[in-house]
Parts: sequence; structure tokens; C-alpha cells
Amino acid sequence: MAQFSIVGKDIPRTDARAKATGTALYTDDIKLPGMLYGKILRSPVPHARIVHIDVSKALALPGVKCVITGEDTPKIKYGNWRLFPDTQDEYPLAVDRVRFVGDEVAAVAAVDLDTAEEALQLIRVEYEDLPAVFDIESALKKGAPVLHDNCPNNVSVTRKIEYGDIRKAFKEADYVREDTFRVHAVSHAYMEPCSSLAAVDLDGRITLWTSTQTPYIVQCLLASTLGMRENDIRVIKPYVGGGFGGKMEMRPWEFCAAFMAKKTGRPVKITLTREEELIAGRRRHPMKIVSKVGFKNDGTLVAKDLKIYLDGGAYNSMGPTATFLCGNFGAMLYRYPNYRFYGQHVYTNKPPAGAMRGFGAPQSLYAAETQMNIVAEELGIDPIDLRIKNAMRTGDKIPDVATISSCGFIESLERVAKMSNWKRRRKSLKDGEGIGIGCYSFISGGVFNWFNTQYPFSAAEVRVFADGTAHLLTMASDIGQGSDTVLKQILAEELGLKMEDIRITSADTAMTPQADLGTWGSRVTLMAGNAVLDAARKIKQKLFGAVSARFNLNVIYDMECKDGRVYAKGRPERGMSFGEVVAMVQKANRGEPLVARGSYTPRGKGLVTPAFSFGAQVAHVSVDKETGLVRVKKMWTAHDCGTVINPSSVEGQLEGSIHMGLGYALCEQFVMDKGKTLTNTFLDYKIPSALDMPPGESACIETYEPEGPMGAKEAGEGLASPTAPAIAEAVYHATGYRCMDLPITPEKILKGMKKKAPK
Amino acid sequence: MAQFSIVGKDIPRTDARAKATGTALYTDDIKLPGMLYGKILRSPVPHARIVHIDVSKALALPGVKCVITGEDTPKIKYGNWRLFPDTQDEYPLAVDRVRFVGDEVAAVAAVDLDTAEEALQLIRVEYEDLPAVFDIESALKKGAPVLHDNCPNNVSVTRKIEYGDIRKAFKEADYVREDTFRVHAVSHAYMEPCSSLAAVDLDGRITLWTSTQTPYIVQCLLASTLGMRENDIRVIKPYVGGGFGGKMEMRPWEFCAAFMAKKTGRPVKITLTREEELIAGRRRHPMKIVSKVGFKNDGTLVAKDLKIYLDGGAYNSMGPTATFLCGNFGAMLYRYPNYRFYGQHVYTNKPPAGAMRGFGAPQSLYAAETQMNIVAEELGIDPIDLRIKNAMRTGDKIPDVATISSCGFIESLERVAKMSNWKRRRKSLKDGEGIGIGCYSFISGGVFNWFNTQYPFSAAEVRVFADGTAHLLTMASDIGQGSDTVLKQILAEELGLKMEDIRITSADTAMTPQADLGTWGSRVTLMAGNAVLDAARKIKQKLFGAVSARFNLNVIYDMECKDGRVYAKGRPERGMSFGEVVAMVQKANRGEPLVARGSYTPRGKGLVTPAFSFGAQVAHVSVDKETGLVRVKKMWTAHDCGTVINPSSVEGQLEGSIHMGLGYALCEQFVMDKGKTLTNTFLDYKIPSALDMPPGESACIETYEPEGPMGAKEAGEGLASPTAPAIAEAVYHATGYRCMDLPITPEKILKGMKKKAPK
Repeated sequence: MAQFSIVGKDIPRTDARAKATGTALYTDDIKLPGMLYGKILRSPVPHARIVHIDVSKALALPGVKCVITGEDTPKIKYGNWRLFPDTQDEYPLAVDRVRFVGDEVAAVAAVDLDTAEEALQLIRVEYEDLPAVFDIESALKKGAPVLHDNCPNNVSVTRKIEYGDIRKAFKEADYVREDTFRVHAVSHAYMEPCSSLAAVDLDGRITLWTSTQTPYIVQCLLASTLGMRENDIRVIKPYVGGGFGGKMEMRPWEFCAAFMAKKTGRPVKITLTREEELIAGRRRHPMKIVSKVGFKNDGTLVAKDLKIYLDGGAYNSMGPTATFLCGNFGAMLYRYPNYRFYGQHVYTNKPPAGAMRGFGAPQSLYAAETQMNIVAEELGIDPIDLRIKNAMRTGDKIPDVATISSCGFIESLERVAKMSNWKRRRKSLKDGEGIGIGCYSFISGGVFNWFNTQYPFSAAEVRVFADGTAHLLTMASDIGQGSDTVLKQILAEELGLKMEDIRITSADTAMTPQADLGTWGSRVTLMAGNAVLDAARKIKQKLFGAVSARFNLNVIYDMECKDGRVYAKGRPERGMSFGEVVAMVQKANRGEPLVARGSYTPRGKGLVTPAFSFGAQVAHVSVDKETGLVRVKKMWTAHDCGTVINPSSVEGQLEGSIHMGLGYALCEQFVMDKGKTLTNTFLDYKIPSALDMPPGESACIETYEPEGPMGAKEAGEGLASPTAPAIAEAVYHATGYRCMDLPITPEKILKGMKKKAPK
Repeated sequence: MAQFSIVGKDIPRTDARAKATGTALYTDDIKLPGMLYGKILRSPVPHARIVHIDVSKALALPGVKCVITGEDTPKIKYGNWRLFPDTQDEYPLAVDRVRFVGDEVAAVAAVDLDTAEEALQLIRVEYEDLPAVFDIESALKKGAPVLHDNCPNNVSVTRKIEYGDIRKAFKEADYVREDTFRVHAVSHAYMEPCSSLAAVDLDGRITLWTSTQTPYIVQCLLASTLGMRENDIRVIKPYVGGGFGGKMEMRPWEFCAAFMAKKTGRPVKITLTREEELIAGRRRHPMKIVSKVGFKNDGTLVAKDLKIYLDGGAYNSMGPTATFLCGNFGAMLYRYPNYRFYGQHVYTNKPPAGAMRGFGAPQSLYAAETQMNIVAEELGIDPIDLRIKNAMRTGDKIPDVATISSCGFIESLERVAKMSNWKRRRKSLKDGEGIGIGCYSFISGGVFNWFNTQYPFSAAEVRVFADGTAHLLTMASDIGQGSDTVLKQILAEELGLKMEDIRITSADTAMTPQADLGTWGSRVTLMAGNAVLDAARKIKQKLFGAVSARFNLNVIYDMECKDGRVYAKGRPERGMSFGEVVAMVQKANRGEPLVARGSYTPRGKGLVTPAFSFGAQVAHVSVDKETGLVRVKKMWTAHDCGTVINPSSVEGQLEGSIHMGLGYALCEQFVMDKGKTLTNTFLDYKIPSALDMPPGESACIETYEPEGPMGAKEAGEGLASPTAPAIAEAVYHATGYRCMDLPITPEKILKGMKKKAPK
């Protein structure tokens, strides 16, 4: 493995000081002269026709500068699946009809927030109620209320995968079982509520500062919904306080801020309240998962038949992609010689589900990993042994998906077994305690171009200077995950510079190189990282040429950039300082600065992803048998994310993932009543607190991913999946209660508890 | 001449709406959180040793966050003649010694302006007075006080030019005369006083928003005086309210704002008062000019021997360049077969003179043109006829300078004669009225690399998009002269786009392409324009290739970009819309955006400039013989600026030049007492008002300058020169008073008036 100077080191994050000192400006911190404050009126009913909207009283309120409804807008639908325009089903503001409680109906802009809020109350909307559906089964019933006329059965997207011979395989299997799982919706619960600030310049161009994961996607969709040209819109991502998938689309408030800024000529800022986030924000897809598996008696997995129904809520949002990916996650972790998947994305009159950390995997893998644990018990094989037997390995091929180019799964299983003292601990626990395992595989960015971008998937520009510094420009978006730091590390490593030698400018659609698809699918390190490497290598070729010419080096010499110098490898005296070589290259080009552009687009990588990560996690819980309360005592994690670029960042991702997994498994849920979300504050919607966090131990199984920059692959999302099934198995191990429908509440445990736990 | 769609049209200026509506943000309009206000303590004495500075009381004042003196700084000298480090003679804050009243001694930063001002008064400086000199003669005397130890004779730069055989020529001349002229200092009197705002980020990088003509030069010199790396400093030029040469160097307040921001960790803004501008700001060089000319009786100019002594004030500033250029301006307008120049830059204990609109030419040409008028009278030849006889023409060569590649001087003379009805009017004026002529030639940017830049003289990046828009990035600085508009026009013209299709980003040293030397010497239209053209042409080649491939065009086809389309010339149906072709090029490059970089560096253009402009101006004045008051009744101007890119902007330059010329000729002057400037407000320092402006007529003699973009050359500075000599000649014509020392005050007229005027 390569020797690195910067990569693999615990480099302090580029944004750490600004965030720690409070100087980091988030969108809501930005104030512009003459700025107006916007608010959005939302539907109070789950499904209705809009008969009439009267905004006259609102408009008459002193201080109100603008009131808009869907009728004022160009009425252009949008959606992220731009490749299939039929799937674009959402208006920025409702036209004729609302489809969920919280659907955006009107917007106001006023001189202050109080006035804007008062104005909302003065808008009179006459609704004609329509019948509504709130779950998958009802929505799929014949004669069910139809949400979108072009989908009379409420199914907006279906997807099928099939390979091998599934019927034959099940016939030949020794052991077959089918289970139905239900998983629920949860919130991203990012610290920073969404905020957008739009300003229009005197040429009519819009600048939008917005809390987003995807400046480029917002730019494109905002242009299309406003009927403007893409490049007359500039999207800037300020500091962002978390996204987790919840900020990866264009959102109605982005449109409303921009549209009202255009109408008034004044900047308009809209910041959501936590209540709005919780009642109307995107959420993780609830799903119904029917999984049938076949095994040989020796534990060899021979077939899987998987049906997943996604409860999409009122609009597609990222649902089509989720439907697509669920089928892949269903067959990603183990060798599935025969596999069939059928997925449906179903409309219901609830807030739309969207992308959320893991994006299909937490649901799909909750079912798959729990079922694996059931099978292990039934076949009398240790759950880890059963997994090792069927585990994917480097070089394995998933039909129509990809060949696994690096895989540390077996090592992860072995390592986590060792760390947790699995076999011994599993047998020696006290009453009311249990341990369980869950695993994951995840993608390192998506390959399928559903957004139909015309640009490379990621790009970078690197400018190097005679003073020994470099400037990295990239549209990649740091939303707290640390990509600015990681990309600087990659560049510093490749050019032999220090972190402080590098200035970075990122996530500004007008200034940074076109384009980058944004932060989602754990794509940034691999894709933006590769783009940075591509640019850096072009720079190096020029530097190497100059040094070769200057020292009259034999062409066979290998060269390197290291410690601020450029020289012949093994002959360090034949070289010069980085800055001196840049100056020489510049001279050789008659003064032209040394600038290189790099890009990355995955090609020949199938339909899903260029690289796969793997990991295994063991949870140790104790369950209070009087109350059903679960306490997670410890988590052990071993995972393969390729080369670790920044150990602290990887550790942070792991901790955050466990935190979210804990909430997903045990306590987070939306309580709803006829489409209305009742858990609308953090008092009611319960995320685990710092005190709920278990201690943990972790290990990175370092593989070298050939497609990744310096061998790296994803580390941010895969880890969101194993926690829930590991805890569920531990609870089962402790109590005999097997959770088939998340979350694992005390009520369910008390009801399902067996007198004698299965250990 | 080429047919243009955008060039030559009266396109509204890009900055017009922002300025008219008051939304344009100048540096002083920018406020940052936690910002401190800085003030500078200046020397009250013209020449002294600093014995001791006690800042303790100032530091103790509540609200004061920082007090610095030269001793706190790295004590690194700076100056624009970086190619000759010996000429860098100025410290950002005085070290040991002050050399003029107003010299920067200390700086404070406080929470508000009042506190900062109060703090200044609490700083105790003990000076030990040194003898001072205030004029050229005294400074050059033996035993005169020495300002800079490395220049014991107070001469910092000398320059000689000689060609032909000057002695022989004078011997063979029929008519020889020598005159001594004195010209005075005037102020740039820009509307926006200098302002600088520095912020330091948590990595220690500085961002400086500053009212400057030269962001790149400020970046480099700030880095060197702070001991930082150039690219750890980012200079951004916000809207600028005029410069006229007064904002083309690094200034002490830029250093002080940056240094105190570093020291305090808080943004620091320093905005000068008008009083500071007038007492300590740069000013136009006073000069003593001794000019000896020889003619044949038929009016043929045979020789000139020119000696110019520049009163540079206390530091070099742009004086070395002025010394250099004066010698060139002395022989630029007419055919000088034999020429000798000797120039000296002399230190005196006054505020340093610097660059100012025309930069050497107004002084040099006041003398040359006045002398030409004297000679015309003495030889009995009409002044315009004498000029036409000796006028430069296209193809003329100035030894060691350049070949004149386009010259509309004779046409200008003929045109202005016709417009003003010169010969008839000159004979038929009422008593107390007179008309006179003055002419100019000027440079279109400098060729001599005195700043020793390692970059092209100007650069541009052009990005074009499938939506039919383009983004132009350039470090060129619009300081009110309109370069953003002109560069957009050039790009729009070349790419066949509309002005509204182009976004421009300019004058940000971190974001716009390295580098541009700034706005001075009338260089921007030609140099940045050529860089833009270079980039645009690279874009076009790609577009042409795509259309050729798509329509299978014969390689001999010429192609063009026009009206938003790209097509075969003469076969417009074989083409596509601009955006479609961009999309096709992008496809052909697997998604890579279409971006091109262009640059311009003058090569093989001698030592002075790539192109010369010419013009002639006639003034009609009436003089009140009781009071000596001059009223300019009308001005006629004909000038050759090559292709006119924006007629209104050229007209604006002309009007502004006449306004400044009027002030230079008649009323502006610094009244000084022992080095102290007494005219320290606009009540005392008198610039002409709008009511003083004469009506005028003007004509552009359009030539096509082969080195200029689309045939264009300078239009902004040359016109600053002819007004004063034209008015002086008109006053002579009206009164018989010949002004040999500007300004032409009523007192001088009354004293010098002849009973019978010479007409």
C-alpha cells in the first residue's frame, strides 16, 4: 500500500475553527440590505381540490410586499428524475390541488417575520376535500382515491430485477422461508433547518444562497420552474448544518424565495421552523418488504425473491431512485446466485418521503439482515458463520450491476467477531441481555444518470502558483461531512503540499467548475476526489517535464512531488521547490498560469456504483423486562471503506450513523393522524440524546479500492444500516421478541417477549 | 471595415442601473460582523526624524483594539517599480523618518470612528526636525537636504533618449528657440475617497476589498510588505468611484487595514476623508520643462532638445514611469528626425506625485503644444497648417519606440479645423475672445514590464453554456471607465450573443484568471479586450468544428457566430443555435464544459505601447479684461481612438477629460506653505462645476488599429492633454498673454495682457 503523508492522518477539519468560534455563516445568518422575510402557507388537509384562494386581505396588510399562489407561477412541474420527465410530478406551489397536510399553497414576503406570519393567516383558501389514502395497502386497492391522474393505480414507478433461475433454485433449496417486514418513516433531524435567500440583480439574474446538498440540481430545477436559463441563476451553498439526504432536491421555499425576489426586486429569505421541517419535510421511506429466501442445509444461500412496496407519500421526490436501489441493496451483501426483485413506488396522502442517509439500504437491510439472523437460528448455524459462508468477495460479480473491485467483508465479520468476543459473549450473557449482528454493503456514488446531467459527474480545477500555494475549485458540497477537508487532503497528498498551502473554493455554481451532482449516495470522496486527482496529475506532468528539462533527466526516471519539492524519485537533489518549478513552467508558457481541470464520470461501471463498501456491527443490549426499555451497552464495528483519508472524519461518520441507527431502531417515529403529523417538535419526535449513545469500538479494514482516489470509497452512509438489525437481533437474543416492524418499542417488546430467551 | 452588431452601438453600461439606483456597493458600503474602524496618524512636519512614539494612552482608551507604528511592521519597502528594487523607497508606515506633511506614522483600529479619531490624538510622537526642500531647484542644489540616503543628489531616476544628430540639426535649422515651462500639481478629485476593508480568515488568509485600479499589484505588494505569500491574499475590487491614476498603487491604508485585521482577528475598514485625500493623496507631477526646438523656415520640424525635471515629492510612487514616459510624449505627435531627452525625477518634501490621467502627457504636451503655437506665430504659419506639415502618419517609426500602426492625426486636425471653422473664426472674433488649438497623442497601454509580472499582461476566461449564455472572467478593473461593458461588448460581438447573454466576473484576484496589471495607461480596452478575443476565438474554433462535422461542411467554408447562431457564412441554414452547438461540443468532449482561456502580452512592440491614439482640440474663450476671468465658450474635438466600441463611453471620456483639462488650465491648484497643503477641502481646491462646462462638438476619426481588439485603441486619457494648451492659446489669442506656467489665473492674465491681442 502506498505511503501517504497527508492522507490517513488526523488532519483538523478545514471548517472546524469557523464552526467552533461561531464565525461560520449559515444561510440564515446572511442579511442583505432591503431583505424581506418569506413564509409559506401549507395545506391543512391531506387531499383536496383548491376551489379559490383570496389573498387580498394579506396583500393589504401593511409591510406585506408580495403574496403568491400557484396561479402566479409558471406552473412547471419538477422532480429529480429529469431523465424521465413523466416522473416530475411536483409544482413549487400547489396548482388546483393539494395532496398532503403541509403541501405548499401560497407564499408571502414581508418586511419582517411577524408581518409575514400574520399575512399567512389572512389568506383564505377554499378547499373541496377529496378522499385520501394513508398506507400502501389502501393506496393499491382497486377504486382507491387517485393522487396523480397519470398514475391511476397510484404506482408511479415499478422496477424488476431477475437473474439466475429463481423457480428452479427454490425447488432445489433445502430450506425456504418468507417473511414480511415493515419499516417506518423517520426524520433527518439535521441541526440546521432549511433556509434560502434569493437576490435578483439588476440584469434579472438570481443568486440563491441555500442550505442544500446539491447546488447544481437546485440551479437547474430552479431555472426550469422559473422559465429562466440555467446560467442566469447562481446557487451558492454557505455552511450547511447537515443534510442526510433531506436537502438534495430543489425545494418549494427555494422557488418561492427566488420568485418573490424577482417580483419585488428585493432579497427574500425563507427559513423553515422545526415544526415545518417535521410536518412537511422529506422523511425516510416507509416500506413493506416481502422477502423469500432459499438455503441449502449447510447454509449456502441459493435464492431470494424480494418484493418491496415503498410508501412514497404524495410526490415522487427521490422515490424512483429509492425503488431502483432497494432492488440492488437486496442482493448486495451476499452471493445471490438466483435473485428476483419487484419494487413499486406507491403514492399516499402523506408528506413525500425522500432520500435519507443509506437511501433504501436501512430498510432493505433491516429485512435482509434480520431474515439472515432468523435463518441462522433455524439452520442452527452461528449468524456470523452463516454470513462468512455467503459473503461477497473481491472479484465477485453482481449480474448487471458490477464486479466488486474491493471487498473487506469477510475480514470485517472476522474482526467484529474478535473485537466483541462474539461466540463467548453470545453464550455467557446475563438474563435480559443480548448481542446481535447486522451488516451492510453500500455504494460509493451512483452511476445511473437519472438527473440527465450533460456535465461530468464531478469536476475540479487546480491552480498552482510560484509562491508554493494551490487553489482548488470544485462544485462539491461540504454539508458537514467534511469534503472540503478530504479534497484538500487528496490534493495536498498528490502535489506534496501542506494543507495550509491550499485554498479551496467550493459549491458555487457560477464560480466553481461545471459541474458536480452534489452530496448524496456517498459519492463525493470518490467522485470529486477522482476529479481532484485528475487535475493534480495533469499539473504534475507539467512540473515533471520542467524538472526533467532543467536537470536533463533520463526519460526513464520516475518523479515525485513531496514535502514541497518536485524531484527525481531516489535522486532528491535533482529537483527544486514546488514554487520554483511552477515559476519555471510559467516561464516556459510565456507567463500563462499553470491551471488544470480534472473530471470524473463513472463509465463501464454498470448501473449502480463504481465501488462497494462493507461492514459488520455487533450490538450488546440489556432489556428491562419490567418496562421493555432497551439500553444499548456497547457497539462493535468493523468496516471496509478502502483507504481511510481522514480517520477522525470516518470515526465521526460512524458515531453519527450509530446515533441515527439507534433512533431508527428504538425511538424515532412520526405519529400521524389522517395524514397529519402529530410529532411536530423535538419534544415529541424523539431522537436519541448524547446520554443514550453507547460506548463503542471500531476498526477499519483497509482495502485498496482501485476505482477510488488513493484507494478510498464510501464511509458516510453504509454505516447507517447495520445498527437497527444488530439491535433487533440483540433484543431477540435478550427477550425472544423478534421485531418485524420497526421501531422496537417497549410496548412491542413487552407484548412479544418470551419467557425464555433463545440463548 | 468590419460590420459590427454590438460594437459601435450605444449599449447601456453594465453598471448603470446599480449606480443609478444606489444599489452599487462601494468599499465603504460593505460592513462585516465585528468590523473595526481604522484611522491613520500623519506627520504634521515636512521632514523629521522620529525620536519616539508613545502609543500607551491611545491603547488604553476603551474601544481601541489596535495601535501600530512602523516599528510593529516587518519594515519592508515597496514601490511599483518592482523590476528595479532600488526604486522601492516607501514604508507602509514611517520607520525612523517622515518626509512630507501627511506621511503615515501610525494607525489605530477601534470599535467606532469617533474612538479611532480620539485615539489618534492620544498618540505622542517626538520629532526631530530636519531641513526640508519644496521645489526642484532647491532640491538639486549642492548641499541640499537629502531625503533618501541612497540618492544623495535627490535624483532617484534619470532617463535619456537620443536619436538623429541633434547638434547638426540645430546648426542647420533656420529657426531655433528655447522655452521654459512650469506645470503644477493637481488632484485626481475622484468622487469616492479611498477605502479599504481587510478581513482575515481562520487560516490566516487575508481578503481585502479596496477601492483600487490594480487589484493584482495590491495583492503582490501587500504580500511582500506583510511577508506573506501572494496567494494567501485575495484582493477584490468592489464598485469604484473613479481613480484617474490615484488608486493604482498599494496604499498605506491597505497595508494598515490588513495588518491590523491580522493582529486583531477582526475586519478593519479604513476610509479616507476628503481632507486626507487632498493633503496627502497622490497628485499630478509638477514639472519644469525646458524645450528647445529647431525648424526650417517652411515650418519643417528638424530637432528637439527636451529637459524635464519632475517634482516627485517625498517618494518615487509612479514617478520613475512618468520620467520614462515624458521623454516619449515629448516626441510622439510629430515627426522628430532628431531628438534628445533628458529627464530627472527629483525628491522634495511634499506629498508624492503619482500617476494621473494622461500620466506625463498633460505636462509634456502643454509645453510642446504651446511651443508649437509660439513657433507657428513666429514663422507666420497657421498653427493647424504647421501641425499638419509635421504630423505623424500611419507607418511612421519612432526610433526605439514603435512603428505607428494606425494614425488619424491629420484627419483629426482637418476635421477640427472644419468643425470649428478655424481659419475664419480665428480672424473674425470679437475683442476679448480667442481660439486656440492643442493636440495629443497617447499610448494604449504600456509595454515596459516595470512591475516585473510573471503573468500575461491580461487574461480572460470564457465559459459558454448550452443555454446560450456565456460567463466572462477577467481580472480587469472597471473603475468607472466602463471596461466591464466594453469587454462584454467585445465578447458578445465575437460570439454573436447579446449583452444580456453574458455574465461577467471581474477584478477578484482569487477567482478571476491570473492576472491583469490593472487600469492605467489606457491599457484595458486593448489588452483585456485582446485577451477576451483570444479566448472567444478558441471557443469559436470548437463551435465551428462541431457545426462542420454536423453538416459535413467542406473545409473551405468560412463560418461565423451571429445573432445567437453558429453557421457557415453565406449558408445560414447550415448551422444551429449557439446553445445547441455548445451542447454538441460538450457531448463531443464527453460532458466537459466548453471553457477557453485567452491572454495578451504585447511582444515586439518596443518599449512604450502597442498602439497610439491621436486627436486635436480647439477652444474658444472669452476673457473679461476687467477681471481676467476666462470663460470657455465652446470646445471642438476630433480624435482617433480606432474603432469606437461604445460611443457613449467615448463621449463620456471626452466630457470628463475636458472637465479635468479645464480645471488644470484655469482653476485647480494646491496652495502650499512649507510643505503643508492649505487647499484641503473642495471649497478651497476648486474643480470646475457642471455650470463651468462649455458646450462642445466632437468627432471620432475611426481608424482600424491592427493591434487593438476589433481595431480599437485608447480613448480615456489622451484627451486629458489638449484642453490646457488649446485654452492657453485661445487666451493668448484673446489677450496677448502667453501662459508659460499653469494655471492660467486671472491675476496672471491681467498682469500679462497686451493692449492689442495678436489676431
